[in-house]
Amino acid sequence: MSPLDDLSALSACCPALTAPADIEPYARDWSGRYAHPPRAVLRPGSAEEVAAALRACAAAGLAVVPAGGRTGLCGGAVPRADGPPAVVLSLERMNRIRAVDARDFSITVDAGCTVRAVQEAAAAAGRLFPLSFGAEGSAQIGGALSTNAGGIRTIRWGNARDLVLGLEVVLPDGRVLNDLRRVRKDNTGYALRHLFIGGEGTLGVITGAALKLAPALRARETAFLAVPSPAAALALLDRLSSNGAELIGFELIGRWPLELVRRHAPRARLPFALESPWYVLLELGTAAAGADLRTPLEGALAAAVEAGEAGEAVIAESEEQRAALWYLREIMPECNRAEAPSVSADTSVPVSAVPSFLAEVEAALAARWPEGKLIAVGHAGDGNVHIALQAPRGTPREAWHRDAEAIEDTVNRIAVAHGGSFSAEHGIGQSKRHAMAALRDPVALDLMRAIKAALDPRGLMNPGKMLP
Amino acid sequence: MSPLDDLSALSACCPALTAPADIEPYARDWSGRYAHPPRAVLRPGSAEEVAAALRACAAAGLAVVPAGGRTGLCGGAVPRADGPPAVVLSLERMNRIRAVDARDFSITVDAGCTVRAVQEAAAAAGRLFPLSFGAEGSAQIGGALSTNAGGIRTIRWGNARDLVLGLEVVLPDGRVLNDLRRVRKDNTGYALRHLFIGGEGTLGVITGAALKLAPALRARETAFLAVPSPAAALALLDRLSSNGAELIGFELIGRWPLELVRRHAPRARLPFALESPWYVLLELGTAAAGADLRTPLEGALAAAVEAGEAGEAVIAESEEQRAALWYLREIMPECNRAEAPSVSADTSVPVSAVPSFLAEVEAALAARWPEGKLIAVGHAGDGNVHIALQAPRGTPREAWHRDAEAIEDTVNRIAVAHGGSFSAEHGIGQSKRHAMAALRDPVALDLMRAIKAALDPRGLMNPGKMLP
Repeated sequence: MSPLDDLSALSACCPALTAPADIEPYARDWSGRYAHPPRAVLRPGSAEEVAAALRACAAAGLAVVPAGGRTGLCGGAVPRADGPPAVVLSLERMNRIRAVDARDFSITVDAGCTVRAVQEAAAAAGRLFPLSFGAEGSAQIGGALSTNAGGIRTIRWGNARDLVLGLEVVLPDGRVLNDLRRVRKDNTGYALRHLFIGGEGTLGVITGAALKLAPALRARETAFLAVPSPAAALALLDRLSSNGAELIGFELIGRWPLELVRRHAPRARLPFALESPWYVLLELGTAAAGADLRTPLEGALAAAVEAGEAGEAVIAESEEQRAALWYLREIMPECNRAEAPSVSADTSVPVSAVPSFLAEVEAALAARWPEGKLIAVGHAGDGNVHIALQAPRGTPREAWHRDAEAIEDTVNRIAVAHGGSFSAEHGIGQSKRHAMAALRDPVALDLMRAIKAALDPRGLMNPGKMLP
Repeated sequence: MSPLDDLSALSACCPALTAPADIEPYARDWSGRYAHPPRAVLRPGSAEEVAAALRACAAAGLAVVPAGGRTGLCGGAVPRADGPPAVVLSLERMNRIRAVDARDFSITVDAGCTVRAVQEAAAAAGRLFPLSFGAEGSAQIGGALSTNAGGIRTIRWGNARDLVLGLEVVLPDGRVLNDLRRVRKDNTGYALRHLFIGGEGTLGVITGAALKLAPALRARETAFLAVPSPAAALALLDRLSSNGAELIGFELIGRWPLELVRRHAPRARLPFALESPWYVLLELGTAAAGADLRTPLEGALAAAVEAGEAGEAVIAESEEQRAALWYLREIMPECNRAEAPSVSADTSVPVSAVPSFLAEVEAALAARWPEGKLIAVGHAGDGNVHIALQAPRGTPREAWHRDAEAIEDTVNRIAVAHGGSFSAEHGIGQSKRHAMAALRDPVALDLMRAIKAALDPRGLMNPGKMLP
């Protein structure tokens, strides 16, 4: 078949974009590092249209790159510049909330719903969909599941994976795996859905999901405090956790990224002078009517101050103050970029290893790149502290990024030596395939390749992603 | 090689039992329905010995049946009578607690530790390992993971699967998958561990696990109450859940199994006369110091009585009373057996579908087996109500079990029609393979077979189990 025949066969399956100007937005993700236009963009409106599209692509031998909101940072949802001819399959038209069952604490949605749309539909039923991260207004649930997204609430409700009851998946040959059940207990064979969750579209296309909901929160308490060290932050975390505090967020923040917020975010209001090397932003939340979160929080903070684990501390007294504290955290990536280029890692370690991990990272980076500034900020409550090494102001991006692989590798190896992961929540995509090859257990890689070959024998699903 | 050569090669890898009297206990599980002696019982003491044993079995072409505490009910851990020559690989000598990290809320254990040993090691560190079910004193953690065990606490902490951070697995060819990490976030490729969890030993042998812990509970409240219907029980569940009650158990119990407890358990003390068709046993638990569970529980029960959702109710006033209430539930299987033979299902449905599921099951069973008595009891809080149909007293087991397949099929089909599962927590083993063939999506079965062929191409791991 000629390329023209291919495209008309695809257009018969579902709406397709083929004009270069229409396709252009689908050539890149938020990282900006990866850009390559697909042959066409398919925009199916149902699982049946996805199935027809995958059959047509298989017949034409075209590779398929599934795409959601394209908010990823690893090039997972854009074609490879050196890859085979590929189409992008965008789920954006599949954006129906299929069903909400409040009593069952479940919601069933199309894969193309944004994470925020799912949150809003849950809230309308008096429930909480707890997945929450910066890009939630654009990120689609199918992408969030395919990359097993994390975010700020995993300390309480886990990752995207932990919120899934069932999936609908179109397989590479166009068959539909209808596993969209809502049962909490099901032991009928291998847990297939866990291959597609975090599978980055390399085994099939998630078209629908049944998701768990939680009771709506009735009260929250948010605190921001100075701590002398990561070890002190962890001692406070332990104090809170052991006493059954209902933590829904626990962020550890180095002084430097807060300095950058002060410098670049005119709207930001820091509650006190930045005299400490580390800070914690934490939040408690409860669905219990009339529960008092404030008294135990104040008690824990007072005890932490007495034990030397904490210095100055503020508790938000209004929704406005709460928003102002979270704004400090949310504006950080923007302020970092405004200052100077940086190279980022996405590591996690066991929670108890966070202090030792940070100390080793700081020493190793300072030894080799003394001119760099350490940006450490992240979800310490689940061991996922994001490390970035920032160039001195005025350094051109290209110059600093010449060492990108070496910087990342330095951080990744320290994480792995601590029993950690070099990709905590962003996934692999194109950007971390070399780390997969260098750092992942060869036996695990062999098993993954065997599974890929079994489910996608022709290798047409998102080729050149994830597996090295 | 002759059979004798095979056995001496195996004995060189690890201690082995070959005398018929020694082997006999390994020929059966708790169901008593399946019994067949293996050629030998291998008792490795380390992952390395397991690896050597699997290599030797592969060389000899012997099938391997991994076994833990053999508390399963589906014949999953015993050789098939019609199967190929097989050895049982017992993990019982691998019973070390490898590490407890209280601050990380994790524990790392050998697969042969009993569930209770894991609970006790966690408790000694001021933590809770929440997996709990009747056989926990004998069941081993490797078996609990291989069957994704459920139990009474899943409403709060999920199934065994949800408690796993990492696994060590010996593959059919003797390679070791070392994925025993303790990170909460890890997106480095396919989530391999979820294939082995619930995989019933058909893909490899779990030899170690890193497990999540929770803070130790500081307070519990336990209530037993009469409810007019399953719908009323669900309304009470909704009332509690929506108000953020920290439910750690919610059991729905029909009148008949309680009658049998009164009849056959002299030590049982029923708190009031059995005048209602349904009962609920519920428990709240919290790790929060000084939290008041009693007031909200009393409030919810009073509101439920006012709304007609509940009748008589008692709240345990002491640990002794709490134990007495749970004894009613725990002694049930024994009392059922003492009365007459029964045929059991292991179904689950979405929580909101429990009332309609029960009504249809009751009607369908009564229509075809009017002489049977319905035993309905189970974890309604997660949609997993166990159904059994009991013969009239004095009926011989063989006579009643002539209809076993038809009874199970009747219940299973109603569960599946409600979007449910025909194997909620016991697994498939030998006993539910026909249901897998009849009721599981053929596309899902195809995928499972592809995965089995990819990971165990010679089909030596627990053959004739799970996959039809």
